[in-house]
Amino acid sequence: MEKARNELTLHTDKYQINMMYAHWMHGTHTNRAVFEMYFRKLPFHGGYAVFAGLERVIDYLQNLRFGDEEIAYLREQEENYQETFLEALRGFSFTGDVHAVREGTLVFPNMPLVRVVAPMWEAQLIETAILKFVNFQTLIATKASRIKSVAQHDVLLEFGTRRAQEADAAIWGARAAYIAGFHATSNLRAGMLFGIPTKGTHAHAWVQAHDTEEEAFRAYAEALPEQVTLLVDTYDTLRSGVPNAIKTARLLASRGKQLNAIRLDSGDLAYLSQQARRLLDEAGFPAVKIVASNDLDEHIIAGLKAQGARIDSWGVGTQLITAADQPALGGVYKLVAREIDGEFVPVIKISGNPEKVTNPGFKEAYRIVNRATGKAEADYLALQDENGIRQGARIKLFDPLHPYIFKYVEGYEAIPLLQPIFIDGKLIYELPSLNEIRDYHAKQMQTLWPEHVRLLNPEVYRVNLSEALWQKKMDLIHAHANP
Amino acid sequence: MEKARNELTLHTDKYQINMMYAHWMHGTHTNRAVFEMYFRKLPFHGGYAVFAGLERVIDYLQNLRFGDEEIAYLREQEENYQETFLEALRGFSFTGDVHAVREGTLVFPNMPLVRVVAPMWEAQLIETAILKFVNFQTLIATKASRIKSVAQHDVLLEFGTRRAQEADAAIWGARAAYIAGFHATSNLRAGMLFGIPTKGTHAHAWVQAHDTEEEAFRAYAEALPEQVTLLVDTYDTLRSGVPNAIKTARLLASRGKQLNAIRLDSGDLAYLSQQARRLLDEAGFPAVKIVASNDLDEHIIAGLKAQGARIDSWGVGTQLITAADQPALGGVYKLVAREIDGEFVPVIKISGNPEKVTNPGFKEAYRIVNRATGKAEADYLALQDENGIRQGARIKLFDPLHPYIFKYVEGYEAIPLLQPIFIDGKLIYELPSLNEIRDYHAKQMQTLWPEHVRLLNPEVYRVNLSEALWQKKMDLIHAHANP
Repeated sequence: MEKARNELTLHTDKYQINMMYAHWMHGTHTNRAVFEMYFRKLPFHGGYAVFAGLERVIDYLQNLRFGDEEIAYLREQEENYQETFLEALRGFSFTGDVHAVREGTLVFPNMPLVRVVAPMWEAQLIETAILKFVNFQTLIATKASRIKSVAQHDVLLEFGTRRAQEADAAIWGARAAYIAGFHATSNLRAGMLFGIPTKGTHAHAWVQAHDTEEEAFRAYAEALPEQVTLLVDTYDTLRSGVPNAIKTARLLASRGKQLNAIRLDSGDLAYLSQQARRLLDEAGFPAVKIVASNDLDEHIIAGLKAQGARIDSWGVGTQLITAADQPALGGVYKLVAREIDGEFVPVIKISGNPEKVTNPGFKEAYRIVNRATGKAEADYLALQDENGIRQGARIKLFDPLHPYIFKYVEGYEAIPLLQPIFIDGKLIYELPSLNEIRDYHAKQMQTLWPEHVRLLNPEVYRVNLSEALWQKKMDLIHAHANP
Repeated sequence: MEKARNELTLHTDKYQINMMYAHWMHGTHTNRAVFEMYFRKLPFHGGYAVFAGLERVIDYLQNLRFGDEEIAYLREQEENYQETFLEALRGFSFTGDVHAVREGTLVFPNMPLVRVVAPMWEAQLIETAILKFVNFQTLIATKASRIKSVAQHDVLLEFGTRRAQEADAAIWGARAAYIAGFHATSNLRAGMLFGIPTKGTHAHAWVQAHDTEEEAFRAYAEALPEQVTLLVDTYDTLRSGVPNAIKTARLLASRGKQLNAIRLDSGDLAYLSQQARRLLDEAGFPAVKIVASNDLDEHIIAGLKAQGARIDSWGVGTQLITAADQPALGGVYKLVAREIDGEFVPVIKISGNPEKVTNPGFKEAYRIVNRATGKAEADYLALQDENGIRQGARIKLFDPLHPYIFKYVEGYEAIPLLQPIFIDGKLIYELPSLNEIRDYHAKQMQTLWPEHVRLLNPEVYRVNLSEALWQKKMDLIHAHANP
């Protein structure tokens, strides 16, 4: 919806086109391949992540075409490419299968979030964009969900546009924050594109543009009498800002209107909010809310709440929209199987770092939910042809890095996490509305024990491999170690 | 060039439109105002920043229009707005003056980077977008310049797209990195839009897609015989990857071609590069280059060089494209003067935090360059009507936070930093080409003493206020403290 047709087709790494070309030259470009997108480590030292970005991926895949401009550029850019290859690109479109986790789902390391089964050259081209879209929205939704877990029922406002990493990040970040429970954004374009409620007060410049703060507040309240929020820290919050806001509240009251809120944007928010609350209450305005902003994140909000800050609503900017304490998710997209003579053969990538060795094979991903508690116990990865898990058989759960630690479970429900999105290049997934995704995410949060949600040192949620998958992985490691 | 017409008009905070509306209601919307965009603190604990983002700002201002879709959205979104206001927006365009620093210029805290003199409602609307564009590109250009200062004459490749914060960040970040001295990007769309050279090798998936690594390398070299770079760490860098690359180098040599490089993407890059260099040299391929990638930044590159790593070219991704150690610049846009009865009257914003008190008034910004050394001595902010500085008079430089520390300078050249970009809404600036900006930046780096450039504990470059400006600031602070 956002981008013109073709505009994202070359928004990829050059090596993808090089590999497409090399496959095409050798006639292997139509061999089917299985790629999985996943991340290896949870962001923010947290206990979970929130999957987001699928709608953007879908839009991208539906509009993937090489136009004249793209082909002319490739011709001029790379002397290796033969003209017949460039001609073949003219007919290119995505014809593969995509399965993905639903947006709003809680997700964990090494679980496939997106699985692509497609002709090799198609699967290769789309790597970069899928990673970029899912990495970013998942990162911001996760950050927002952490803030939500602390703010609880307070109102959360996304205010980050001016500090976002360029224009797209602001709007897709606003969407991700809304999925995770934020209530509104300041970005009007995000509001227009996605139907997210928008909120806005005024800036210091409004106050500075008048001879006095009192005059500025009155003028603002007269122009926008509904839902007035006044920024009170341009000169001196408690000696000037709040008293002037109270005068404005009286003026509005005399006209049958209500001052909605004041906003604190600097200084000690714990102290100032308590004093402002007292002044407002004493003046007879207990219903006037207090909004706070100024480099807030989940830790600062938790600290302010612990100190008894009287804040009703939080405007969160820089720290959320850039995920400042960890601005990249680090998701990867790895080949796990390739078709040879009509069969999918598992492949592996070895690494000196044990966590970086890939899980091979065409797999399914399940969430093991305890039937008695309704809580998620673990995630479980199995090869596609394994049936035991689907039939609820007793299964062995063991830590893939420390396989001598294990337990058996039964009495569970195994929920398949990967939903069909595209089959043979055709979109078959019915996209939920943004509010449906947001509600679904809120329900997802109820399926996790609080121990996994807490900010500090959360209990690790386990992602397990089936015994067959683990054995396949060991076999491949040994095969490559002793070729 | 990038965005459809109107597309960025609502890419602003709602409070801007609220303030536009309130000014419009009170008839103050056409009063002229002076806003300055600047940042308060250098990123990355560094000694300088690199200004970038102006071309994007220019494109934005030229395309600022409210279309039917935007107006319909505003009508539905905000009950306060009167229909006559929405009608007035239909005729809206930017009619103000903009002065800005040239892209590629070294910049410092509290110096105006962009100065807008415009009717109040225009100046207000554009705040959010100007901040977002300049904050991001300046941040990435600064990060890239730091990496360049360490990598010196090595080849620098921008590889960050998959970890960028959405699509725009990848392409504008690639542009910013190129300005600061990077040589190429992996992002083809950035290459197409800006003429940046593009580079790409192959992924682990290429190797995994073949029965053996040796076969994979040969197939790749046969398909793309010019400028082949082989990724050697899919299974085992020294026991498999480099020996197979050497076989491929021999094959290419037998056909009159050369292997260009190998790429290391994991493990101990210092050790592996030394061993790989030795193996390549012993096999008779001293001309084959070594490219390294894997979460590199300026500190890791400096460390690897100190350890004698034999790396010719650096692929830098996540850490650069997200500016991971500080992903937001924190630039602000502040009202410094407003027109009253045809005169610009300075205004101030007070804060409990001394650094956050604004520098009031319609100002000019100068770089004080020592005529003897050609090096920049300090920056200097003066009120617009001050002439001494332009005539080279002896001036007093003093630290605005510690005004009792001062010195006098003469024999300097005072270079005005703010260039006219728009006058009365008309673009009068001739945009330099990207290569001109890149060359200009390289020359800028020569004007700074190395003490300001070093990564760790750089010497602080001073930004001074004229005595008249400092006195004006003190007067305004006292006026607001004792109203």
